[in-house]
Amino acid sequence: MTNDKFKKNKKKSAVVLLSGGLDSAVTLFYAKSKGFETYSLTFDYGQRHKKEIYLAEKLAKRAASYWQHVKIELPWKGSSLLDEKLKLPTNRKIGKGIPSTYVPARNIIFLSFAASYAESIKADAIFIGANIIDYSGYPDCREDFLKSMQQSIIKGTKRGVENKKVRIYTPLLKKNKQQIVKLAKRLEVPLELTWSCYKGGKKPCGVCDSCRLREQGFNSANVMDPTLC
Amino acid sequence: MTNDKFKKNKKKSAVVLLSGGLDSAVTLFYAKSKGFETYSLTFDYGQRHKKEIYLAEKLAKRAASYWQHVKIELPWKGSSLLDEKLKLPTNRKIGKGIPSTYVPARNIIFLSFAASYAESIKADAIFIGANIIDYSGYPDCREDFLKSMQQSIIKGTKRGVENKKVRIYTPLLKKNKQQIVKLAKRLEVPLELTWSCYKGGKKPCGVCDSCRLREQGFNSANVMDPTLC
Repeated sequence: MTNDKFKKNKKKSAVVLLSGGLDSAVTLFYAKSKGFETYSLTFDYGQRHKKEIYLAEKLAKRAASYWQHVKIELPWKGSSLLDEKLKLPTNRKIGKGIPSTYVPARNIIFLSFAASYAESIKADAIFIGANIIDYSGYPDCREDFLKSMQQSIIKGTKRGVENKKVRIYTPLLKKNKQQIVKLAKRLEVPLELTWSCYKGGKKPCGVCDSCRLREQGFNSANVMDPTLC
Repeated sequence: MTNDKFKKNKKKSAVVLLSGGLDSAVTLFYAKSKGFETYSLTFDYGQRHKKEIYLAEKLAKRAASYWQHVKIELPWKGSSLLDEKLKLPTNRKIGKGIPSTYVPARNIIFLSFAASYAESIKADAIFIGANIIDYSGYPDCREDFLKSMQQSIIKGTKRGVENKKVRIYTPLLKKNKQQIVKLAKRLEVPLELTWSCYKGGKKPCGVCDSCRLREQGFNSANVMDPTLC
């Protein structure tokens, strides 16, 4: 895993995990700005609403990215993000503990599919918009995990064994939401197509962890959030 | 990852990756013999035939195991095991190179789902029937990968962070097919319910890598293969 500056190279290709949220959208446009040919990968894993998926396709189109949509089952639930019987957390102290929205091993699953996709198209890189500053307490957003997962992918794939190592890039890992919003503006990310709220609906709920983090970011960056207009 | 002898402990639970093939069936009965409450996990990932899945359910029932079936999409294909347009290898020198049946990152994906399932039911272990002696050249069956993947799962899950580490057990890792067949007999695995052939049909094809490995194992262990009767 690396956040090193890398040279523009038109021939490199990357799988980008694209949820349709702010962070993954910025990550996609960042990968593009670095000259990668991008292959966006979006999951329908039973999340409460499909708005993000709909927007992810639009974001990929705007970034001139290939778009691949994969449906997976997680029949064991156990997360308030998947199970409508469970209550979404609001007004929680963000950064303390692991919230009920945690989906067991989600990024392990997403990165394993990205590894498979990358292997099949001979991509050089995987981009993921994880970050550790504003992360909501999810263990699978931590640097230590991401470094380990890169090793697992190298060791468990044909390209890795053949010494053509796929690298996991995490350009947002150490950025806070303010920095991410500023980067989004610089990269001309179509912010109106990003959706962070854990719920669906016409407007963001404004009270879930994800809405509150987003609001803090836009306010501190002094940028208007177009999804609130 | 470990193959250490462990004490019988009725309270321990394990997710067992169960394809319906010989190795995973033996692994399931092995886990059971060690006193684990077992949760078998079988994938429908677009393989050429569904016979294994049908038998996996029967095997789980015979082992008094819970059975969970998960359907996943791998839309990028690229393996002769998934793509009927590609030819299955026959009479290849087994152990040399990576064959066309290789499914990109398959065990990374399977183990990531197992990690998610284990996390949701608070299981202590994951069992996988990978082995390095007779393995068909798949990078994701190697010890080095499996060790790395255990670390990734520990680092990327809530239970790992809370120091309740899930362990990956690979009881067949260093066994050849002869030893696996002998172990199957000792554990009273219902061999008539296991299916190794890459193709479906009433009888195994007898010429694919998997059939040939199985035949060698049964012959050298001097055991009649009930699927051939």
